[in-house]
Amino acid sequence: MKSSQISQFLKLPLQGEDLEIKTFSTLAECTPNTVVFAKKYSEKNAIFLSENNQILAIVALEYAGKLNCPHILSENPRMDYLRILQEFFAPKQTQFGIHPTAVVEIGVQIGKEVYIGANCYIGSQVIIGDRTYIHANVVIESETQIGHDCCIKSGAIIGQAGFGFERDSNGVPQPFPQLGKIKIGNYVHIGANTCVDRAALGTTIIDDNVKIDNLVHIAHNDEIKENTLITAGVVFSGGVIVGKNSWIAPNVCIKEKMQIGKNSFLGLGAVIIRDVAENTVVVGNPAKELKI
Amino acid sequence: MKSSQISQFLKLPLQGEDLEIKTFSTLAECTPNTVVFAKKYSEKNAIFLSENNQILAIVALEYAGKLNCPHILSENPRMDYLRILQEFFAPKQTQFGIHPTAVVEIGVQIGKEVYIGANCYIGSQVIIGDRTYIHANVVIESETQIGHDCCIKSGAIIGQAGFGFERDSNGVPQPFPQLGKIKIGNYVHIGANTCVDRAALGTTIIDDNVKIDNLVHIAHNDEIKENTLITAGVVFSGGVIVGKNSWIAPNVCIKEKMQIGKNSFLGLGAVIIRDVAENTVVVGNPAKELKI
Amino acid sequence: MKSSQISQFLKLPLQGEDLEIKTFSTLAECTPNTVVFAKKYSEKNAIFLSENNQILAIVALEYAGKLNCPHILSENPRMDYLRILQEFFAPKQTQFGIHPTAVVEIGVQIGKEVYIGANCYIGSQVIIGDRTYIHANVVIESETQIGHDCCIKSGAIIGQAGFGFERDSNGVPQPFPQLGKIKIGNYVHIGANTCVDRAALGTTIIDDNVKIDNLVHIAHNDEIKENTLITAGVVFSGGVIVGKNSWIAPNVCIKEKMQIGKNSFLGLGAVIIRDVAENTVVVGNPAKELKI
Repeated sequence: MKSSQISQFLKLPLQGEDLEIKTFSTLAECTPNTVVFAKKYSEKNAIFLSENNQILAIVALEYAGKLNCPHILSENPRMDYLRILQEFFAPKQTQFGIHPTAVVEIGVQIGKEVYIGANCYIGSQVIIGDRTYIHANVVIESETQIGHDCCIKSGAIIGQAGFGFERDSNGVPQPFPQLGKIKIGNYVHIGANTCVDRAALGTTIIDDNVKIDNLVHIAHNDEIKENTLITAGVVFSGGVIVGKNSWIAPNVCIKEKMQIGKNSFLGLGAVIIRDVAENTVVVGNPAKELKI
Repeated sequence: MKSSQISQFLKLPLQGEDLEIKTFSTLAECTPNTVVFAKKYSEKNAIFLSENNQILAIVALEYAGKLNCPHILSENPRMDYLRILQEFFAPKQTQFGIHPTAVVEIGVQIGKEVYIGANCYIGSQVIIGDRTYIHANVVIESETQIGHDCCIKSGAIIGQAGFGFERDSNGVPQPFPQLGKIKIGNYVHIGANTCVDRAALGTTIIDDNVKIDNLVHIAHNDEIKENTLITAGVVFSGGVIVGKNSWIAPNVCIKEKMQIGKNSFLGLGAVIIRDVAENTVVVGNPAKELKI
Repeated sequence: MKSSQISQFLKLPLQGEDLEIKTFSTLAECTPNTVVFAKKYSEKNAIFLSENNQILAIVALEYAGKLNCPHILSENPRMDYLRILQEFFAPKQTQFGIHPTAVVEIGVQIGKEVYIGANCYIGSQVIIGDRTYIHANVVIESETQIGHDCCIKSGAIIGQAGFGFERDSNGVPQPFPQLGKIKIGNYVHIGANTCVDRAALGTTIIDDNVKIDNLVHIAHNDEIKENTLITAGVVFSGGVIVGKNSWIAPNVCIKEKMQIGKNSFLGLGAVIIRDVAENTVVVGNPAKELKI
C-alpha cells in the first residue's frame, strides 16, 4: 500500500514522499515502511520522526512545518490512526455460526452472522442480535436480550441471579427471588470475566455503545446509559443509574441506588457513597468532587 | 390467584377488595392485578398506591389507615413479599443430574437431587451434598467438601492452589506447596467468577448460610462464619477469620490473618489493616471505626 | 519416613529423638508423628512444642536450647519447610497431554510434557512452552507466547482485545483496533479468573518468575518485570511498567502508563496515580510514600 492511499482514505493531504507502507507500529518500536501516530507535540518526537524518513506519521497540527519525514497533519491523530487500522490492517470478522462445543438451549433466538464460541452455555430465553460475537467460555442465562453488533468476551457471565437477601428472625439470610430480566443494547462490549446480573424485579439495562472492560460487576437493576465507558475492576451495587457519556475508572465501587449524572468522571479507585451530579469529577475514599 | 390466598398464606388480614393477582412487580413498574411492596412509609408512595386500586400492596405498619387500595399490613414487608414470591412465583428447582458436557472425575461423591451444569469440571476428591445446584462452567478441584442446598454460580473456581511464595536467596519466589482442603457448609451461595482457594495446610472454611456475591476472592485458610454476607469484588488475603452475621460491602479488601468480629459491618471500599472488634462499623482507607 | 532423612535432606542437624514422620501440619492442628514449623520465636510456641514430643519442629534459631521436642534449627524455617513439603509430600506432576474436551486450534505450538485441562480453548497462534500446566476452563487467544514451567489456573482469560476507545464527534466510543501480542516468560503463575489482555500495538510482557494471583487484570501493553508478585484483585490500566522484585498487595489499582520502580511495595488497596520510585513503600488513596 502507498501513503497516498491512506491520504485519500482520510481526505487529508500527504506531506512528503509517497512511501510504500507495509505495517503499523508504535513510535517506540517503529521500523521502515510503517505508519505511526503522535497525538501531542513534543520536540523529542519531532526530532525522532525527522530522523526516520522511511515512515509515515499521522501527527497533530502543532507538528506543521517541523517534520522532514512523510506525514499527514490531523485534528485528531489517534482517531485517524484508528480509522487507518480498521480500514487497512484489522482482520475483518468473517467467522459465523456456533462452535460445536457450545451448548445452546432450544428456544434461543439468534440473529444473522452471529458467532458463539467454544464451551459457551446459552440458556433458552436468550435473544442475540445480528453480528454479535461471543467469545469462548461465556455463560448467558435468564431472559437476556442482547442487541446487534455486540462483543462478549471470554469468561463473561450474564444473567445469574442478583445478590439479594433478607435476614429472617434468626439472622439467617433468605434469598429474595431474582426474577427479572437483562436488556443489553447495540454495539455494547462486555469484558472478559465480567458479570452482569439479572434484575430482582424489572430489568438490568445496558444501553447502546456502552463499553465494559474485564472483571466488572454489574448488579441487579443497574442502568447504564449510552456511550458510557466502564473500566476494569469496577463494582456496582444494585439499582445504580449512570448517565450517558460517563467514564468510570478502574476499581471504582458504587453504593446501591446511587445516581451518577451524565458526562461524569469517576476517578481511579473512587468509593461512591453519594449521588454524583452531571459533568462532575470525583475522586477518593469516600469520593469527593475535584474542582478543576 | 386471589389476594385472599396471599393473605391466608401470610396469616395476615387483607384490607379491601379480594383482587385477582396475575403477576408481581416493583412499585415503579406496576400494572393492574399485580402484587407490590413498600418497606418504608412515604406520602408519595401512599398517594401513588391509593390511586392504583387494582393492585395488592404489602406495606409497612405506618401505612395503616392511609391507603384506599387493597393491602396487607406487615411488620416486615420485604420479607413477606419474599415469601410470596418464593411460594407463588419463583420457578421450583426440578432439574437434577449431570449435564452431558460436564466432566466429573471418577471418585466424586454426589448427593441426591444435585445438578451439575454444562462445561463444569469436578475433580476426583470433591464431595457435593444433596440438592446443591452447580451452574455452567464451574471448576471444583482438590479435597473440597460442599454441603447440601448450596448454589454455585457460573464461572466460580473452587479449590485451586493458594497464593503462597517464599523468596529464595536470589529473590526468586518459590511456591509454598498448597496441600490443604476446603469445607463449605450448607445453604452456601458462591457467586459468579468467585474464587475459593484451598488451604496451604489445614482447611479453608465457609460456614452454613454464608452468601458470597460475584468476583470475590476467598484465600487459603480463610474462615467465614455462619450467616455472613460477602458482596461483590471483596478480596481476602490468607488466614482471615470473619465472625458470624457480618456484612462485607463491595470492594472491601482485608489484610492477611485479620480477625473480624461477629456482627461487624465493613463499609464500601474499606481497606482493613487491623482487627475489627465485634458489632463494629468500619470505613475508609485505611479503615477506621465509624461511631454511630 | 524418619526425621533423620529430613535432617539429611536439609543438611541441618537433628536435635532429639529420630521420630517416624507420617504427615505435615500447622502448629494449631498438629497430631503425633507430624512435621511442623515455627518462623518467629514466641514463648507460647516454645511451651506448646515442648509439651508435644511426638512431633518434629523446624524452628528459627532463637529456639536454640528452649525445646524438649525433636527439632531442627533453621535460618529460614518457612523456606526449609517448603523444601520438605516439595520433596516428601507434594504430589509430583505426572499428568501430560490434552483433555479430550479441550479445544486446541490447528497451528498451536505445544512443548513437551504440557497439560491442557478440560473445557479450555486455545487459539491458533498460541505457543506453549515445556511442562506448562493449564488447568480447566482456561481461554488463550491471539499471538500469545507462554514460556516453560508455567502454571495457568482455571478460568484465566489470556489474549482478549485490550480496552481502547476513542470518542468520535458524536461522543460514541469507537474501538481502537487491538492488534498486539502477549509474551509470558518462564515459571510464571497466572491466577484463577485472571485476565491478561493483548497489546494494542506492540506486546504485553510478563517476565520470568512473575506470580499473579486470582482475579487480577493485566491490561494492554503492561510490562511486569521478573520476580514480581501480584496478589488478588489488583487492577492495572494500560501501559504500566513494574520493576522486578516488587510486591503488589491485594486490590491495588494503577493509573495508565505509571512506572513502578524495582523492589517497590504497593500496600493493600493503594490507588497509584503517580510513578513510584524504586525501593519505595506506598499506601492509601491516593497512594503516598510511607517512610519506614
